[in-house]
Amino acid sequence: MSDRPQQVVINSPLDMHLHFREGAMAQTVIPLSSYSFAGGVIMPNLVPAVNNLERLTGYLQEIKSIVGDDVFQPYMTVFFKDYSYEELEQFKPHILGIKLYPAGVTTNSEDGVAALDRVETTIKYMEELEIPLLVHGETHGFVLDREKLFLPIFEHLANKFPRLKIIMEHITTAEAVALLDRYENIFATVTLHHLIITLDDLAGGLLRPHLFCKPIAKRPEDREALLKAAIAAHPKLMFGSDSAPHPIDKKEACGCAAGIFTAPIALAALAELFAKHNALDRLQAFVSDNAQKIYDIIPPQKFITLESIPFKVPATYGDVVPMFAEREISWSITKLF
Amino acid sequence: MSDRPQQVVINSPLDMHLHFREGAMAQTVIPLSSYSFAGGVIMPNLVPAVNNLERLTGYLQEIKSIVGDDVFQPYMTVFFKDYSYEELEQFKPHILGIKLYPAGVTTNSEDGVAALDRVETTIKYMEELEIPLLVHGETHGFVLDREKLFLPIFEHLANKFPRLKIIMEHITTAEAVALLDRYENIFATVTLHHLIITLDDLAGGLLRPHLFCKPIAKRPEDREALLKAAIAAHPKLMFGSDSAPHPIDKKEACGCAAGIFTAPIALAALAELFAKHNALDRLQAFVSDNAQKIYDIIPPQKFITLESIPFKVPATYGDVVPMFAEREISWSITKLF
Repeated sequence: MSDRPQQVVINSPLDMHLHFREGAMAQTVIPLSSYSFAGGVIMPNLVPAVNNLERLTGYLQEIKSIVGDDVFQPYMTVFFKDYSYEELEQFKPHILGIKLYPAGVTTNSEDGVAALDRVETTIKYMEELEIPLLVHGETHGFVLDREKLFLPIFEHLANKFPRLKIIMEHITTAEAVALLDRYENIFATVTLHHLIITLDDLAGGLLRPHLFCKPIAKRPEDREALLKAAIAAHPKLMFGSDSAPHPIDKKEACGCAAGIFTAPIALAALAELFAKHNALDRLQAFVSDNAQKIYDIIPPQKFITLESIPFKVPATYGDVVPMFAEREISWSITKLF
Repeated sequence: MSDRPQQVVINSPLDMHLHFREGAMAQTVIPLSSYSFAGGVIMPNLVPAVNNLERLTGYLQEIKSIVGDDVFQPYMTVFFKDYSYEELEQFKPHILGIKLYPAGVTTNSEDGVAALDRVETTIKYMEELEIPLLVHGETHGFVLDREKLFLPIFEHLANKFPRLKIIMEHITTAEAVALLDRYENIFATVTLHHLIITLDDLAGGLLRPHLFCKPIAKRPEDREALLKAAIAAHPKLMFGSDSAPHPIDKKEACGCAAGIFTAPIALAALAELFAKHNALDRLQAFVSDNAQKIYDIIPPQKFITLESIPFKVPATYGDVVPMFAEREISWSITKLF
């Protein structure tokens, strides 16, 4: 063993599932992503939702003004609804995909799709126009079953629209991982936190509101399946943090909002995790190459050097508590160029 | 349908699992139990634990001084450890049973029993002296599996000590309910909240720290099994609220303590629940008669009249937020004598 720190250089890391919010919160969180990532998929579940061209271009402008001189490509999305072919054609040059939320399942998804069959015309147009469908795949069932109960809907869509790229967002179960190998046109993102925590971390000891997220963290065998696929850099799996900032008074409260804020610590924590599993050589694929191939995108070049040098996570970024607050991650970003 | 409210009179309701705490908190919570119940089993997991005669009699004195003129019998317990026969003989006239906590599983149980086989001599003495064993039956496994994984330990104890009365405290699973019918010497308590909530209520929408408890609320089919046994007044099942007060700043916090405070609303909420399931005629057995038979006790007489008249639950009692805070329960206590 050498005393010199281990090192890994990642070219153009991508965060394929990101919540940037708007206004003051966007000012806090966007620079934390644009610092270390070369691009990210920006979720449209604002209030009101990003679901028309004006709102989309306005939001993109806001993001670009905050990103400033950082090298960072925001890949925009719009909120799924019953769009006409013409609307979709207008969106197409500006977006990476369309995000579908089953109604009421997660933060600000009240306007999501209540019944899929009523909107299959829009999905058919998307297939024709080669616009990927990004899905928060949960039903309204019991909290631990919601993802599993949604999987038949993914299978239905995959069969009915074989040329549509379908992305299962933030998967949390072994059953969802298994689906990747059964349908050519089904892909997935997975978060940092679902590779690390289970329901035990949220509620096994004291209750930890800053580890409360949707979909909720599941069983140890689910985490194992996700981790196994991630460290193998399964070619249909992409990193997407689902980094979701909420002010501290919305988390440490009587009704705590769902969301874990991981953007500023994600790369260091992933390096630590992949190093622990002797998988550093597969981190590049997991955090960038897989997404480039799946979405057929070429992100801006940006080299991030990570080293096995400890990094103490701050207690807060603005009024947001990050994952691992005040704890040490054994890896850190040491160089950007 | 008559316009007159429905009514039920309960003779000597008993709460067979109660946390009274000490000092200022005891001053807040004890009167709320002694008002509407005729007696209750007082848990010994204080810091330091109630595990010697001096501590036991001191704690009983404190409770009696707060109970004052209310008709309320505190049934005391001591914290399980490796006791000698002589110690157990000394305890015997003062206690209803001995409470066993597997080490570290719940609030203040760090001194609990790490390995049962090392303490079976004490359990054998308890069997000889006819002292019931009250058990927090959870292992150290994954939070959802802890109770199920503990059931074989109950079976082992029931087989090895056939004359020992074993009480599975605050059961939460269908599997635990099923065990009641398989072993003559196994009994159980069930809380109010486990008859009402599932993990969905804690974490299915926003996270609700005031519904966080140990054992954690489980699946809908578990709640159904518990409710079915309760409203049938299963003769081996007793009501035990596990009412566990924590100050609001320990609940709405980064690490939220486990425990739901139900003592002041328990009887009204049970009347509502049993009325809803057309089981009001079995409430007397569930909240009193079953416990009298199982423990062979005769509590003081105390008649509580409940009527289908709405009761608005306060936001707090002292600095403790109760279950159903600021919500209406459709039944209330209207007379005590």
